[in-house]
Amino acid sequence: MLLDSSGGNVLPDNLENILPPGQKDRFRQQIEFILEVDKLKNVLRRTILMDRSRRENSAEHSWHIALTVLILSEYAKDSDVDLFRVMKILLVHDLIEIDAGDTYCYDDQGRQDQAQREKNAADRIFNLLPADQAKTLRELWDEFEERKTPESRFANALDRLQPFLHNYVTEGQIWQENNIKSDQVKSRMRPVNDGAPILWDYVSSLIDDSVKKGFLAD
Amino acid sequence: MLLDSSGGNVLPDNLENILPPGQKDRFRQQIEFILEVDKLKNVLRRTILMDRSRRENSAEHSWHIALTVLILSEYAKDSDVDLFRVMKILLVHDLIEIDAGDTYCYDDQGRQDQAQREKNAADRIFNLLPADQAKTLRELWDEFEERKTPESRFANALDRLQPFLHNYVTEGQIWQENNIKSDQVKSRMRPVNDGAPILWDYVSSLIDDSVKKGFLAD
Repeated sequence: MLLDSSGGNVLPDNLENILPPGQKDRFRQQIEFILEVDKLKNVLRRTILMDRSRRENSAEHSWHIALTVLILSEYAKDSDVDLFRVMKILLVHDLIEIDAGDTYCYDDQGRQDQAQREKNAADRIFNLLPADQAKTLRELWDEFEERKTPESRFANALDRLQPFLHNYVTEGQIWQENNIKSDQVKSRMRPVNDGAPILWDYVSSLIDDSVKKGFLAD
Repeated sequence: MLLDSSGGNVLPDNLENILPPGQKDRFRQQIEFILEVDKLKNVLRRTILMDRSRRENSAEHSWHIALTVLILSEYAKDSDVDLFRVMKILLVHDLIEIDAGDTYCYDDQGRQDQAQREKNAADRIFNLLPADQAKTLRELWDEFEERKTPESRFANALDRLQPFLHNYVTEGQIWQENNIKSDQVKSRMRPVNDGAPILWDYVSSLIDDSVKKGFLAD
């Protein structure tokens, strides 16, 4: 029987009678993955919730932006973008943080070994799954990171817009705590332009407004 | 300018120059909705995380089950099920809890007025959106609640399986705290059979095992 991380068994003894023949290992891997990804709920991001009550975790962030696909799809640069694929990319894109942690986007030191840490994490986490599903999820993550397809560009745009809105609504609290300047935010937000130009114009305006209001240093 | 709940402005003065003509109200409604749904991260469920560190919130629960669509799709009763629609249903299905709260599935008193509370919530929350999007999201939620389509049945199966796994892995801590009996869990889990019969056999086995191990009272 499979022992999960808390020491409980999640596969009953009669599993072979339940599943189609030869399916037992596959099912075990799928359930193990579902238990493992629970850990993303404990990965804290730098972003705070809009009511400032606490830091956001990467699981709820992923939900927020996957839902946003439905709301902002008309602003995707490519009007033929496959929204199902965008959604899948966003549900998967932060799973590597279970091992690699959330690297603050303005942490230049942390970002030096970020790529290697995240690659190692992807090698472990996606390979908990049966090989075909491991390949599917790894491809979604690679696509997100490479930002070459319309789907990954739109996904990246939404992934950057959401924490930006949190920062704006909370009057730049996290920007100020970390001495972030407007040029850094502009540079960080540029991928919004590749995936959703109208949303980039919107973000760009709010960056100027943030400086004007003192939320963000010039 | 739009004042969000924290008193910040989220629409810059030059918005009309950025958006296509006539789009301003639509965009304002979309952004307002994106800010509003942040509140789902503060709706606590009865379920605890698998490491028992804290209660789960409805946003991270929604992420977990939307991701699970990708992992367990082969167990859907209807092999032609539209997985994109299942995923959309699951991302949206708990939004009404922002107003209605999470009603514990074994709280018979709380469940008496649950339907009315949730309907009122749906009327307010989805209607923050432009009319066409409000209709789309409301239809997804209604479909989830009615459990008549293959997509909503599979969605309901995953929505019930995930907290069940949490309960099993945490050795029935929440069942015991609330004096839940195995018949209640069996009855609560029956919709798993409508959406994913193999997963129901699996759950059913684990319920028996939970009784045997003392996680759950007979």
